[in-house]
Amino acid sequence: MSKAASWVRGGNVTSPKGFLAAAIHAGIKPGTEKDMALLVSLLPADAAGAFTTNQVKAGPVRVSQQHLKNGKVRAVILNSGNANACTGVRGIADAKKMTSETAAGLKCKPQEVLVCSTGRIGVPLPIRKVLRGIKQCVKVLKPDRGSLAARAIMTSDTVKKEAAVRLSLGGRRVTIGAMAKGAGMIHPNMATMLCVVTTDAAVDRKTLERVTSEAVEHSFNRISVDGDMSTNDTVLVLANGAAGNTPLKSYDADLGKFSAALKGLMQEMAKKIVGDGEGMTRVIELTVHGASTEADAKKMAEAVVRSPLVKTSWTGGDPNWGRIMGAIGASGARLREELVDIHYDGVAAVRGGVATATPVGRLKAAARRSRVAIQVNLNLGKGEYRMLTTDLSEKYVRINLGE
Amino acid sequence: MSKAASWVRGGNVTSPKGFLAAAIHAGIKPGTEKDMALLVSLLPADAAGAFTTNQVKAGPVRVSQQHLKNGKVRAVILNSGNANACTGVRGIADAKKMTSETAAGLKCKPQEVLVCSTGRIGVPLPIRKVLRGIKQCVKVLKPDRGSLAARAIMTSDTVKKEAAVRLSLGGRRVTIGAMAKGAGMIHPNMATMLCVVTTDAAVDRKTLERVTSEAVEHSFNRISVDGDMSTNDTVLVLANGAAGNTPLKSYDADLGKFSAALKGLMQEMAKKIVGDGEGMTRVIELTVHGASTEADAKKMAEAVVRSPLVKTSWTGGDPNWGRIMGAIGASGARLREELVDIHYDGVAAVRGGVATATPVGRLKAAARRSRVAIQVNLNLGKGEYRMLTTDLSEKYVRINLGE
Repeated sequence: MSKAASWVRGGNVTSPKGFLAAAIHAGIKPGTEKDMALLVSLLPADAAGAFTTNQVKAGPVRVSQQHLKNGKVRAVILNSGNANACTGVRGIADAKKMTSETAAGLKCKPQEVLVCSTGRIGVPLPIRKVLRGIKQCVKVLKPDRGSLAARAIMTSDTVKKEAAVRLSLGGRRVTIGAMAKGAGMIHPNMATMLCVVTTDAAVDRKTLERVTSEAVEHSFNRISVDGDMSTNDTVLVLANGAAGNTPLKSYDADLGKFSAALKGLMQEMAKKIVGDGEGMTRVIELTVHGASTEADAKKMAEAVVRSPLVKTSWTGGDPNWGRIMGAIGASGARLREELVDIHYDGVAAVRGGVATATPVGRLKAAARRSRVAIQVNLNLGKGEYRMLTTDLSEKYVRINLGE
Repeated sequence: MSKAASWVRGGNVTSPKGFLAAAIHAGIKPGTEKDMALLVSLLPADAAGAFTTNQVKAGPVRVSQQHLKNGKVRAVILNSGNANACTGVRGIADAKKMTSETAAGLKCKPQEVLVCSTGRIGVPLPIRKVLRGIKQCVKVLKPDRGSLAARAIMTSDTVKKEAAVRLSLGGRRVTIGAMAKGAGMIHPNMATMLCVVTTDAAVDRKTLERVTSEAVEHSFNRISVDGDMSTNDTVLVLANGAAGNTPLKSYDADLGKFSAALKGLMQEMAKKIVGDGEGMTRVIELTVHGASTEADAKKMAEAVVRSPLVKTSWTGGDPNWGRIMGAIGASGARLREELVDIHYDGVAAVRGGVATATPVGRLKAAARRSRVAIQVNLNLGKGEYRMLTTDLSEKYVRINLGE
C-alpha cells in the first residue's frame, strides 16, 4: 500500500460513507447459504468498470456495460450460484429484469443499476426466486452489511474477500472499500472474478475510468490460477462523493495518491483471490526480467503459469527448473538458452542455461515454502513482467470434476 | 490405414528388411530396466526428420539436425532416463560422443549416426556409462530386437509403442515399421516424444522429407496431453531401399500409396501416445468446424485442449459445455456466441449458443464413455481442425509432483 493511505481494520464495501448493503438467501444455491447481495449508494455515484474480454459474455456483463454508459450509478445487484452465461437472449432479458426490479425497489432508473452474476454457466436463472430475492434485499439494506455481501457472492471461494483503505484528499478523509470473489477460472483479462469497489471520494468520471483501468492492469490482470478466462469477469468502481472533497480531475496533484491507494486495494484483492485459488498449496510470485521487451516477458510469464507440468512440480515442492526452461522456450518469445538464469527465492538454480552447483537441498528448501518467488532472467534486455499464481494440485482436479 | 496397406502383426522397427536393433541396461535408470537402444540399417539409408520447435533444444536434437544434413544415415542411438537437455556445451559434446562411439563400433562416420535422448531435463548424462552401454549395444545387435528397443526408450510410458505396415510398390513388398515413446509434455510441435520410423523402401531424399513433414503435420502435431512442448521431440524416418523397389520420386504414381501408409502409421503411433497419456482416463477426439478459417479452428481447438477446467470436467464425465464455450470465447479466434453448436458423441448439448432440451442423463452417458467425440460448430465458415487429447486427472498431478 502507498504511504499516503492506511488499511481500515475490518474494512469492506460499506466502510466508505453513503453506502448500504444487503445479503440474503434467495434459493439459487441449495441449502441456506446466502446467494444474493445488493449494494446501494445513497448519492448517485460516478462509476467505471472493466469487463471480461472473452467473446462469450454473460447477460449481466452485456447489461452492465450498457448501463455504465449512462454515467451515474445507484446500485449493484449481484448473485452467486448461477452465472447467467450462455443463456442467450433470455439471459440478457433476465439480467435486465434484475436491474428493473432493483430500480423499482429503490425508486431509481434501471439504467442506474449494474448487475453481476457468478456460478455455473449455461443454466437459465431461476428468475422468480431472483426477483423475490431482490425485493427481500431492498428491505434489509443497512450500512453495516458490507461483510455479509462479500460472503453472499462467494462460489468456490473458501474465504470472503474484502478490505478498505483510508487517505486524505484536500483535507477530507476519504475511504475506498472493496469486495471480491474468485478462486478458479482465473487468468488475465481477467479471471472468473467479481470485484466491486466503493469510495466516498468525488472523482470526475473520465478520471475514474482512467485510474480504474490502470489499477486493474496492475492487479487483476497479473494473476492466474488455472489459465482459464471467464465469461463473467467484472470490476466496478463507484465513487459517490459523500466525503465532500472537490471532485478529483486528471490534473489534480492529489490524483496520484488516490490512484496509488486504489491500485494497492485492488492488488490486495488480487492477492486474496490467488491465495484462495482452487486447491492451491503454494503462492508463486513469478518475475520474468531481462527480456527483449515487456511483451516478451509477459508472453513467457503467461506460458510458465499455464504449464501443468511446471505447476504440478510446484505442488511437489520440486525445484524442477527444466520444466520452466521448456515452457519459456516454447512461449514464442525470444531467448538465448545459454544466457538464461533462474532463481528460487534468490537461490541460483540456473546460470547461463545450465544447472548451478547449488546443493539440491538448498533449492528444495526454497521451493517448499508456502510462498515462493521465482525469478527468470533472460539477460537480453529490460523487459519485465510479474505475475502471482498458484500450483496445480490433486485437490484442484477434485474440485473441478463436476457432479 | 489406407486400403493399399495392411498392418503387420507384431510389427516393429525391425520388421522392414535390413534393420537390426539392440537394447540394454546401461545404468542411466536405476534398477535393471533397459535404458539404451541402438537401431542400425545394414545399407546406408536416406533419412528425414522433424524436431521440436522449442527454442530450448537438447544437445541430441542439435546434433541430429546437423548430421541429417549429411544425407545418408546408418544408425540411431537412443537413451531414456536422461534428456541431455539444458546441459549447455557439455550436452552437445556428450551427444557427439554418443555418435562417435556408435560410429566406431559400427565402422561408419559419426555423421551417419543420429542421436535421441529422453528423460529428466537439466542433469548431465552419465557419459561413461552411456559410452560403455553403446559398446554393449553394438555386440548384441539382432534383426529381431525391434520390440526390445521400443521398450528401452520408454520413460513415463506404461506400454511400449510400435507397429508396422506392409504395402506393394511397383511389384515389390515394402514394409514400414515404427517405435515411439511419449506420455506427458505432449502438445503440437510436437510433444515430448520420440518416434523412429524404418522402411526398406527406396525413397528419394527430398521426397522422403516432404512426405515425412506431411505425415507429422497430420499425426503428432494434432495430439495434446498437457499442453507442454518438450525440448527433445524428434521424429526420424530411415529408408534403406532393401526392398529393391525403384526409388520413389515426387512424380511417382505410387508415392500417394507410400505417403498414406506412412501417415497412417504415424497416426497410429500418435493415437498410442495419447492413449497412454499420463494419468489419462478418457481419450477425447475434438473437432472444431465451421470456423472462419482453419487457423481459427486450430486456435480454438488448442485453447480447449489446454484448458484445465475443460479437462477436469472430462475426467469427471461431466458434459460441462459451458467451460468449452468459455475456452473458445477466450481463444482469440472469431465466433458469434449465438451461432455455436456443441455435440457430445452426436448428442446435441448446445444449439445457437444455448443449452438444448436434451435430457442431461443422455449427455452424461455420452460424456462418460472411455472415448468421447466432441464437435464444436461455429457455423461461420469452412475452417476445420481435429485433435486427439486426454483429460486431466488427479493421477496426472501425482505423476508429475516430482521427487
